[in-house]
Amino acid sequence: MSSQFSQHSETALERLVKRIARLPGLGTRSAKRIALHMLLNRKEIMEPLTEALVETARDMKTCHHCFSIDTSDPCRVCTDVNRAKNILCVVATVADLWALERTRSFRGQYHVLGGLLSAIDGIGPRELNIDALLGRIEREGVEEIILALSATVQGQSTAHYIADSCRALPVTVTRLAQGMPFGGELDYLDDGTITTALNARKAV
Amino acid sequence: MSSQFSQHSETALERLVKRIARLPGLGTRSAKRIALHMLLNRKEIMEPLTEALVETARDMKTCHHCFSIDTSDPCRVCTDVNRAKNILCVVATVADLWALERTRSFRGQYHVLGGLLSAIDGIGPRELNIDALLGRIEREGVEEIILALSATVQGQSTAHYIADSCRALPVTVTRLAQGMPFGGELDYLDDGTITTALNARKAV
Repeated sequence: MSSQFSQHSETALERLVKRIARLPGLGTRSAKRIALHMLLNRKEIMEPLTEALVETARDMKTCHHCFSIDTSDPCRVCTDVNRAKNILCVVATVADLWALERTRSFRGQYHVLGGLLSAIDGIGPRELNIDALLGRIEREGVEEIILALSATVQGQSTAHYIADSCRALPVTVTRLAQGMPFGGELDYLDDGTITTALNARKAV
Repeated sequence: MSSQFSQHSETALERLVKRIARLPGLGTRSAKRIALHMLLNRKEIMEPLTEALVETARDMKTCHHCFSIDTSDPCRVCTDVNRAKNILCVVATVADLWALERTRSFRGQYHVLGGLLSAIDGIGPRELNIDALLGRIEREGVEEIILALSATVQGQSTAHYIADSCRALPVTVTRLAQGMPFGGELDYLDDGTITTALNARKAV
């Protein structure tokens, strides 16, 4: 496309393709396919999407209490009287929060860090919502924080950092169990998982 | 997400995720990731994309001469005085037109069919821009049409149909050569390609 119009200034379509290509998981090729699909289905695809974008940008807010995203600030989890206030699940991202909510197995509060510590990416404690977390623990009488962070180097070093920071506070720090994934076949699991599952074995 | 808010009506974000998930190549999971990425980068990603969508919907038109998409109708290819008028490249989609333009090796006109014949999908000659093609051949003194259609069953049956329809017209019908792709290693090519390349062999 760029060569076709090389002698002209950038068209709206070329700009759209570039901007779609910047979305995670998409490249120029898929962006062109998506843009074209939208142009050929304006009423069914393009207009509803544009509307939803405008509406989402207008309506969705960051909760300044737990740093989740919702239509209200504070969010519906923070204001839900049926959820326990004394237990707080710490997650890296809103996507992780959604993943946990999908399971319907946690009925406490959340705290979204906004990422994980990463020296390589220049993400230190100040870049994450850790001070806010410590403040909540002190102010809100939180009795337990569950560190629901990825079983990766970054996830685990973030967990260690937070556990260290909480040492002086009257709060129990726990983390998600590690072991075999549900339905995992031993033969196909990596050595790290098997070792962890073995070391964390439980009496039947 | 849906379970989190199951007791509430659909939020703007849920609507946005649904509408992103309807784009080609995307599902609910990638749609969530994209929506979240946009919400966390409103100024850099979400607003420019929304703008480009609005702008594209407003500016891009279907050329009623060749059925391509451009900022003007007729499009810039159709009105380009430096391009040959007597040779016409027939493509299935605008994406195919772009692919050909990228090569900078064709300097004639185009005609976009809008798809390929497909009995299974209920796409007959009336669903494609074939009548318009025949009209152009008659009116515009086209001397050659190049059928640049996929080397698939649907592409080839569409090519046959068009070639048949042109039999009474004073026009040469050609199609793209079939054979080994550029850089193709014999060992990795499918049998059909090898057979075609063998049968279409040329003297050196």
